[in-house]
Amino acid sequence: MSGSGAFAFELLATDGGARRGRVRTAHGIFETPAFMPVGTAGTVKAMTADAVRATGAEIILGNTYHLMLRPTAERVAQLGGLHTFMDWPGPILTDSGGFQVMSLSELRTLDEDGVTFRSHLDGLQIRLTPERSMEIQDLLDADITMAFDECTPFPATQEAAAQSMRLSMRWAARCRESFRARPGHGLFGIVQGGVFDDLRAESAAVLTGIGFDGYAVGGLAVGEGQDEMFRVLDVTVPLLPQDRPRYLMGVGRPLDIVGAVQRGIDMFDCVMPTRSGRTGQGFTRHGVLNIRNARHAHDARPLDADCDCPACRKHSRGYLHHLFRANEMLGPMLLTWHNLRYYQDLMAGLRAAIAAGGLEDHVAALEAAMAEGDIPQVPDPLSGKGSGP
Amino acid sequence: MSGSGAFAFELLATDGGARRGRVRTAHGIFETPAFMPVGTAGTVKAMTADAVRATGAEIILGNTYHLMLRPTAERVAQLGGLHTFMDWPGPILTDSGGFQVMSLSELRTLDEDGVTFRSHLDGLQIRLTPERSMEIQDLLDADITMAFDECTPFPATQEAAAQSMRLSMRWAARCRESFRARPGHGLFGIVQGGVFDDLRAESAAVLTGIGFDGYAVGGLAVGEGQDEMFRVLDVTVPLLPQDRPRYLMGVGRPLDIVGAVQRGIDMFDCVMPTRSGRTGQGFTRHGVLNIRNARHAHDARPLDADCDCPACRKHSRGYLHHLFRANEMLGPMLLTWHNLRYYQDLMAGLRAAIAAGGLEDHVAALEAAMAEGDIPQVPDPLSGKGSGP
Repeated sequence: MSGSGAFAFELLATDGGARRGRVRTAHGIFETPAFMPVGTAGTVKAMTADAVRATGAEIILGNTYHLMLRPTAERVAQLGGLHTFMDWPGPILTDSGGFQVMSLSELRTLDEDGVTFRSHLDGLQIRLTPERSMEIQDLLDADITMAFDECTPFPATQEAAAQSMRLSMRWAARCRESFRARPGHGLFGIVQGGVFDDLRAESAAVLTGIGFDGYAVGGLAVGEGQDEMFRVLDVTVPLLPQDRPRYLMGVGRPLDIVGAVQRGIDMFDCVMPTRSGRTGQGFTRHGVLNIRNARHAHDARPLDADCDCPACRKHSRGYLHHLFRANEMLGPMLLTWHNLRYYQDLMAGLRAAIAAGGLEDHVAALEAAMAEGDIPQVPDPLSGKGSGP
Repeated sequence: MSGSGAFAFELLATDGGARRGRVRTAHGIFETPAFMPVGTAGTVKAMTADAVRATGAEIILGNTYHLMLRPTAERVAQLGGLHTFMDWPGPILTDSGGFQVMSLSELRTLDEDGVTFRSHLDGLQIRLTPERSMEIQDLLDADITMAFDECTPFPATQEAAAQSMRLSMRWAARCRESFRARPGHGLFGIVQGGVFDDLRAESAAVLTGIGFDGYAVGGLAVGEGQDEMFRVLDVTVPLLPQDRPRYLMGVGRPLDIVGAVQRGIDMFDCVMPTRSGRTGQGFTRHGVLNIRNARHAHDARPLDADCDCPACRKHSRGYLHHLFRANEMLGPMLLTWHNLRYYQDLMAGLRAAIAAGGLEDHVAALEAAMAEGDIPQVPDPLSGKGSGP
């Protein structure tokens, strides 16, 4: 899947604000709009790489923060780079480490040059700068490297958001400067500025002035709500170049993704399908259900009759319910697989609808199915018959 | 894979005391000597059914005790039987529940008719008799049903072992009586008698007098040691019919299996490959290793270069080490897969050697490779270079 061509984005079709595209990287192409499963510590949790591929995923995300702490970027490089390490020969995007430093580490000290923090694993003091983040992502061999930024906390005053965004912009320039260019490897800048339109515009202007291979919208899905997030996208996306991929970081719920696609976003990542899968939450065309709920115990029907994943093709809701009640690892394994397949199927549907110029109707149908809620419960044939041992 | 033919054992070849055979069941055939992965609660832990098949397993074992407590045998039957429930259309053997009642439940009271105990899950009082065990295994739709017996504790006096064995023999007769005959479904009797030759002989005589579709040797691998186990097999196996499969319950380590195959055993089950896999123990041709050991952190070589499982084909020891250090579910998933593949590969090698009349040389080679120990450690390229973040 390797290639020596340039990192490139091809715009194949548009439908309203939505884009159907294709990104070319050193490790192959991926179709957009794309959802990237999160492979935090060199593994998409509870999934083999073969299983991740079988869901239809073409690109995955790795977390710089986790990998730099364990097993370290140097160790990953020594073992052949992240693609070889985790058996993912396709495209990989790595985040910059900035977001997890803010959310996971202890005793953070931010200065103009970078951030000092203590590892959440062993308390070791660690320094991360734009230059070191670029070096780490290079060691990991990311196809898409993310600029090192400060993810502005929410809520923030306009002044705090401005200060934070401008620091991230100075860091973005240093990232561009220190990024080691290689064919098929791209560097993305990240637009910050909180919920303030003029700050988002300022950030977009700085980044496009520097010039990146793609542009991310950061600092959203942090508690501002869907309406506000969509509003910020309405303001921000038109300021980004047409000929570069656009990535909305950390989003999200299915209808968040749908709305963002309608607003011109091409790439997404979120732990939701994997994390929810491990706790028994299953995504279906009719919304989210909790398979641990007693009403599924006797249900011989699949989680989602329209899904072709192994959990749905081969097992009943009753079986999945049993696995979670018995704390069997296969429960999280199957539900993670299902949720990732659901997300990939969602993206494939959006791509096809955009290509066909029918996105509006497609989204209306998605929303209608979601509003219906889960299929009606069936009576338990054993009810009152004494099903005990 | 279903068929309406009779339950049957075909003896294809012998080599010394060892047998190469084939068992025909309602849900297809399996080749012997066979190793049955343990699917305690309706799942081989950390494995999809597809993955279990991919290791080469043709028959699996289900635990009556666990399934009767949760989700209950009636629930499994309502959801289509154990084959449908867990997506295993091939042959399934279920144990009788007796062993786990003794080892897991609380407040057991044994009487002539059966045993009363409290569930280890919720303390509920439960009654298990030979008749109820037959009924449960019928509800589960086992291809091979095991007689309900008392697993004699070890050590036991000859008197205690005799009393226990004779109770099990009276129960075996009741099992035969209450077992619902169906084409392709077999009932196995279990020889007990501890380490006492005359008791084993008495037990074998009673069981062959009653007549079963196969014969198990129970009450071994409970602490008596390999020499004593082999001695009991040397005494017991010749007393069992040539034209019925022989099953050594709960065994075991690779060389235990090899020795038992040499003594004429056809079927095995053990939690060792799955349980060990979850804790980071990996079986190789050179013995067992602990992948959590620091010496594997930088090792780019596979766990076992001769193994074709995904853990070995696609990943380094360094990666597997990382997964276990990071408590990632993929670690137990991959090592379980590897260990089950190792066991199936071991059995395939034994079957081929028996068929070719070369078992003695084959076993000598296995033992020699095992005695060599793990491949020599390689130096860490990052050692002294400061591999920290």
